[in-house]
Amino acid sequence: MSDMKAEPRACDEAITLAFSVLGKRWNGMILGVLGSGSASFVGLRKAVRGISDTVLSERLSGLAEAGLVRRVVAEGPPVSVTYELTAAGADIVPAIQALAAWATRNLQPLP
Amino acid sequence: MSDMKAEPRACDEAITLAFSVLGKRWNGMILGVLGSGSASFVGLRKAVRGISDTVLSERLSGLAEAGLVRRVVAEGPPVSVTYELTAAGADIVPAIQALAAWATRNLQPLP
Repeated sequence: MSDMKAEPRACDEAITLAFSVLGKRWNGMILGVLGSGSASFVGLRKAVRGISDTVLSERLSGLAEAGLVRRVVAEGPPVSVTYELTAAGADIVPAIQALAAWATRNLQPLP
Repeated sequence: MSDMKAEPRACDEAITLAFSVLGKRWNGMILGVLGSGSASFVGLRKAVRGISDTVLSERLSGLAEAGLVRRVVAEGPPVSVTYELTAAGADIVPAIQALAAWATRNLQPLP
């Protein structure tokens, strides 16, 4: 996947690219939650414990801009707005499940 | 892997656990770099472009505390200090490669 040279070697570009999204706090959790189905803003905020409205809003915009999340407005009444993964977003779900399995195998449970 | 309920549902605990490590900026890249071999502090700093000495040092301590990275001191002279993945750290490499492949398929290259 990359040239492996004696150090100094640069971090693989694809890994850098992946963590340009996932290295931002909350993004992995947001994608993980949406991986099991669409959710409203309030539903997401409750599912991603500890995130604020402002940060969730900012993260959803960033993920939409990256083409991973889509905002869906269903004309009402009542109007409903939900967020869901695009095909590109859904494509990450198996890798997130692999990370989750790794965490279960190797990390101490959170307090 | 989790109970899937109608919203509000909580983010899967294992996903939350995984991103307690990977949602900290740089950690994924550090693990990715060490996934292709041990490295010195300076080698890591060069490979993880943009990280500062202070933050790299802080991240390495955190990753060591989580049991993912090990500091190896070879008595000299000259003394050499390198960082490498533990078995728990190495266990994440396939998932990071899956993320990298996902990024290549779905994200715009970084500028």
